[in-house]
Amino acid sequence: MIRTLAVVGTGLIGTSVALAAARRGVTVHLLDADASAVRTAELLGAGTAKPPEEPVDLAVLAVPPSKVADVLSDQQARGLAHSYTDVASVKAGPEREVLARAARPTHFVGGHPLAGRERSGPLAARPDLFKDRVWVLTPSRLTSKPTFDRALDLIALCGGVPTVMQSGAHDETVALTSHAPHLMASLIAARLGGRSPVTALLVGQGFRDATRIARGEARLWTDIIETNAAEVAGVLTALQTDLTELLTAVGELSLRDPRHRARSRQNLTGLLERGVAALEALPAPASGPLAADTAHVDVTIAERPGELARLLDTAAASGAGPDTVAAPLFPQGPDGPLVIRFELAADEADTLAEKLASAGWDVVQHPDVRDETELALVGLPV
Amino acid sequence: MIRTLAVVGTGLIGTSVALAAARRGVTVHLLDADASAVRTAELLGAGTAKPPEEPVDLAVLAVPPSKVADVLSDQQARGLAHSYTDVASVKAGPEREVLARAARPTHFVGGHPLAGRERSGPLAARPDLFKDRVWVLTPSRLTSKPTFDRALDLIALCGGVPTVMQSGAHDETVALTSHAPHLMASLIAARLGGRSPVTALLVGQGFRDATRIARGEARLWTDIIETNAAEVAGVLTALQTDLTELLTAVGELSLRDPRHRARSRQNLTGLLERGVAALEALPAPASGPLAADTAHVDVTIAERPGELARLLDTAAASGAGPDTVAAPLFPQGPDGPLVIRFELAADEADTLAEKLASAGWDVVQHPDVRDETELALVGLPV
Repeated sequence: MIRTLAVVGTGLIGTSVALAAARRGVTVHLLDADASAVRTAELLGAGTAKPPEEPVDLAVLAVPPSKVADVLSDQQARGLAHSYTDVASVKAGPEREVLARAARPTHFVGGHPLAGRERSGPLAARPDLFKDRVWVLTPSRLTSKPTFDRALDLIALCGGVPTVMQSGAHDETVALTSHAPHLMASLIAARLGGRSPVTALLVGQGFRDATRIARGEARLWTDIIETNAAEVAGVLTALQTDLTELLTAVGELSLRDPRHRARSRQNLTGLLERGVAALEALPAPASGPLAADTAHVDVTIAERPGELARLLDTAAASGAGPDTVAAPLFPQGPDGPLVIRFELAADEADTLAEKLASAGWDVVQHPDVRDETELALVGLPV
Repeated sequence: MIRTLAVVGTGLIGTSVALAAARRGVTVHLLDADASAVRTAELLGAGTAKPPEEPVDLAVLAVPPSKVADVLSDQQARGLAHSYTDVASVKAGPEREVLARAARPTHFVGGHPLAGRERSGPLAARPDLFKDRVWVLTPSRLTSKPTFDRALDLIALCGGVPTVMQSGAHDETVALTSHAPHLMASLIAARLGGRSPVTALLVGQGFRDATRIARGEARLWTDIIETNAAEVAGVLTALQTDLTELLTAVGELSLRDPRHRARSRQNLTGLLERGVAALEALPAPASGPLAADTAHVDVTIAERPGELARLLDTAAASGAGPDTVAAPLFPQGPDGPLVIRFELAADEADTLAEKLASAGWDVVQHPDVRDETELALVGLPV
């Protein structure tokens, strides 16, 4: 296990790693070019600003992707640590630079925890930032076993879910799931600039959610996009093609041209349906990389106004979370019972059934039949 | 005040309106072509499925925008209500149709409450869905004063914030703040389709937030986009131009061409910064259309590891919400005190200062100086 850790860069991610490790008894040394960031992290209890007297077990380089190889070379020359990892959201470019320039590339393994917050800096740090979050490791062809194992130890300390990918596959995927969506959100947000205050009145929760990622620090994100520019350009080109098709459909609908109307409407609905289907295919967020089993709880209720509202209130008070879906199964005949079916995570279903029954509700089906959902994990190195 | 209400269309919005009105003692009649939707709304306590024996004070048409004029004509012929309003998110097209076709267009006023949920249908309804939310009314040149006043009564019953706009200005704005963002989110989400399960591992909270709106029902959204097609096409055209410029910058960065590198990086940072600035200029979401005053609370702390974490924990336990920002004001000299400044809504600052002081913290500045932020409301008809 890791006993000593150095964190280079005490922003949101670096300080969160330091807090998680410090709370598990690891001695953490904090380094940052910005003295006030180190001081803030120290005041938070994330570790000490004093440099280590001998090399630590592992150093985490929490710096922008373009700086990873330089900081690694520099710190290896000073003998900061036995092993090194980073937390940048781009992996192939830094890996190439490390292989080309670092004195001991065997002592480095790339890493990317999928966690972040709207806010940045050490004050936004939380020791549980990585709990149940995917943390990708991208070992190069030279990464040594002890270095890989130390990075795994760190992920375990932080409560993350270790996952292994090749750096190139990682970058191609995050261009699609993170970098291009960020840029599209920035384009949409920037269009608000310079408009009258009336516009802000019509900004609802949907717009706020859709553009939240665009609040990220502009200089850090320029560095990220630049380091992954080829993959990002590929996704943007595909989106541009999609947008042109979409614009053709919407443009034809605006002309109210009856010849193309049915086809344009079909194209528009098709796009919207593909989006919905792709999102519904994603595993539930709380469950981490493995989709949770789901189960049903069926309850018979009297057909009285307000009876359903009373049941839903009891269910919410009994711990049925926001992802719980309730649906009425209307009876076939006029005299059949009215059944409300709850669909929720299997491990919550037993509790809900018990609590509803003890509150006097007529629970007709305990969660015995379960829908098994499976998602293969990618080469966990355990 | 309204004593009787009819709701035509018992989906999410219609049922939420009905629940809010029923809880305030209004007699609510529920109508929907889908019998099980009406039955579910009735079971929730949203009103009665029985038709009214005489015209109700106000009928709310909670139907897709393309159906508003037809449903209005139909219900006016049956004498359902004295006045009518709708809740569709597009206003100019339906208004044109109402003026052209309705028997009594004076008895109609367009409406659009800015509230929604990821989930649809009556089971997702909540009586507080509209609380503190902007609710736009778009009176036509023929709308009568009694009809306008009844719509205002309804908004008051629901706890909404009444706002008045011209239907055309409304549609141009929501194309930018709602319809185009929805389509862009759909484009991004649809790109996930058909990819390997590994992709889902790298889908973080940012992607989920950015694409949440794209989960909306595809057929309803086709209707919305089609009814506002000209305005939406205008915004998409502008976004296409922006995307082309962005792609030029990212493409040049991917070629690592030193000639264009500095300029491309500058263009990219500029876009990201414009997005951040536009989002930061939005008023805080909880405060509704009027931005809240902000105030400071300054606390002196001892410079000990963990001391800041202890203060932040106390502040969170004292009701400092997630929008509260804390920043250290580092002393100029080596012996100056270390001050932590909290920035939060003025009406929360007094409470926080008191609670921190009574928990033993050294509160050096009570919230006396306030930053006044003003946002003009648009012609409230009061």
